[in-house]
Amino acid sequence: MGAGQIGTMLGSALRASGAATEVAVWDRDRDHLRECLSLGGGDRALAGEADALALDAVVLALPVAAVVRWVEALGPRLSPGQLVIDTGSAKVAVADAMGKWVPATALAAGGHPICGNEGSGPRAADPGCLRGAAFVVTPVREDSRALERATDLVVAVGATPVIISAAEHDRVLARTSHLPHLVAYALSQVCADAGGVYGLSGGGLVSATRLAASDPEMVASFLLANRDQLTPAVGSLVAELEALVEADQPSLVRRLEAARRARSELVGRSA
Amino acid sequence: MGAGQIGTMLGSALRASGAATEVAVWDRDRDHLRECLSLGGGDRALAGEADALALDAVVLALPVAAVVRWVEALGPRLSPGQLVIDTGSAKVAVADAMGKWVPATALAAGGHPICGNEGSGPRAADPGCLRGAAFVVTPVREDSRALERATDLVVAVGATPVIISAAEHDRVLARTSHLPHLVAYALSQVCADAGGVYGLSGGGLVSATRLAASDPEMVASFLLANRDQLTPAVGSLVAELEALVEADQPSLVRRLEAARRARSELVGRSA
Repeated sequence: MGAGQIGTMLGSALRASGAATEVAVWDRDRDHLRECLSLGGGDRALAGEADALALDAVVLALPVAAVVRWVEALGPRLSPGQLVIDTGSAKVAVADAMGKWVPATALAAGGHPICGNEGSGPRAADPGCLRGAAFVVTPVREDSRALERATDLVVAVGATPVIISAAEHDRVLARTSHLPHLVAYALSQVCADAGGVYGLSGGGLVSATRLAASDPEMVASFLLANRDQLTPAVGSLVAELEALVEADQPSLVRRLEAARRARSELVGRSA
Repeated sequence: MGAGQIGTMLGSALRASGAATEVAVWDRDRDHLRECLSLGGGDRALAGEADALALDAVVLALPVAAVVRWVEALGPRLSPGQLVIDTGSAKVAVADAMGKWVPATALAAGGHPICGNEGSGPRAADPGCLRGAAFVVTPVREDSRALERATDLVVAVGATPVIISAAEHDRVLARTSHLPHLVAYALSQVCADAGGVYGLSGGGLVSATRLAASDPEMVASFLLANRDQLTPAVGSLVAELEALVEADQPSLVRRLEAARRARSELVGRSA
């Protein structure tokens, strides 16, 4: 479900793996659907959303709100042994919906591949980026078979499964992903509001705001779904910004050095 | 003066242009000085800072605080017709110091090439990035000869002169550069403070925090020199972040769409 960047990436990787007999795709956007198939993201198109119920496994590669809507609408009709997993960037909302609407006999898990880029649509898909990438799997209920099937899928597409709780995922991603997205949009707006900038922005601004090129609907969807964790993360950032802007020279240099070291530990020295 | 990234970049470009008889460089860091020369950033090393006073033009490619210190210490000894220009990222502090300490018979101007990267030292220099880049020139006093000489230098290194007031430069750069730097360090710190992140950070965080790989002393220097403009810029960013995190779905999507459009106008659609 969903023939955008993530759906196309996963479909292509799954087809290449030979782990699936066939990959059937669906998207409400017929152009995306056609493009996804032409890029090798699937073997065939489904005629409608509900046709996924006939398949062995259902991957919901949709914005978080659309994942929740699908689970509410069609989750109750999933069959015993059938896998359902999503790829959204907020996992508590998905786990809650799956726990409520998916029968306990079906196999439900949350998923989140930590790769991809700010592009959208099938053409932004880079199946190669899954290789070695972390792919979070969050349990919905105590169900080792569901985790096993989800993990098999992750391994099949070349990624590394990281099994953590939905709550822990949302706490971490609020800081490492959702906050950076929010900041990229806010920075872009502040620069625009400054009026005439005479073209005086270099590669630094391009990079700092790169995430603001992402699809607004998708981003709004995970920001809203994870607002409980995002709000304190914004609070921490604001406190940090205010401490930096008020610091005297020696203390500012010390703080910048500490943050620079922290970054190189987080993202690697070469990045 | 200064054989770091910017000094090496300008020295190389100036030598390649043939516009200077020779380029003499100085740095208190002897390794940088040697490396700069071996990379083609200069024809010879100066024995000491004051030896620059014997040259036709002096380019201060130093952190802002060091530019101000040089101007205070040696500015009064500049000769009639001698050009002095800096490359720092905050221009009011430099214009004030030059206005005070450089004799009116010498030719003083502020300068700021809008290119370069988060690396530091001579090896980070990419002389090619000057080609077509904006290079701000800010007047120190009413002196058309000073602006002419400064502009000639900018054109010689392949950049495009943008003549604006020091105050206007600092207002704009506070938003398009200093704020993004501050945010990159703050974001890195918030992620580090979040504790175990299980490697769950993707390319988005790398890009959003890239500027936090910059040299802390240099960054502290321009942040402090431009605090008057940076403080309201931080205020605008905080207000924007708080508005975004409190917005409901339709208003959030609208705001993200507006910011995304603003960004693509600022930095170009392809970036």
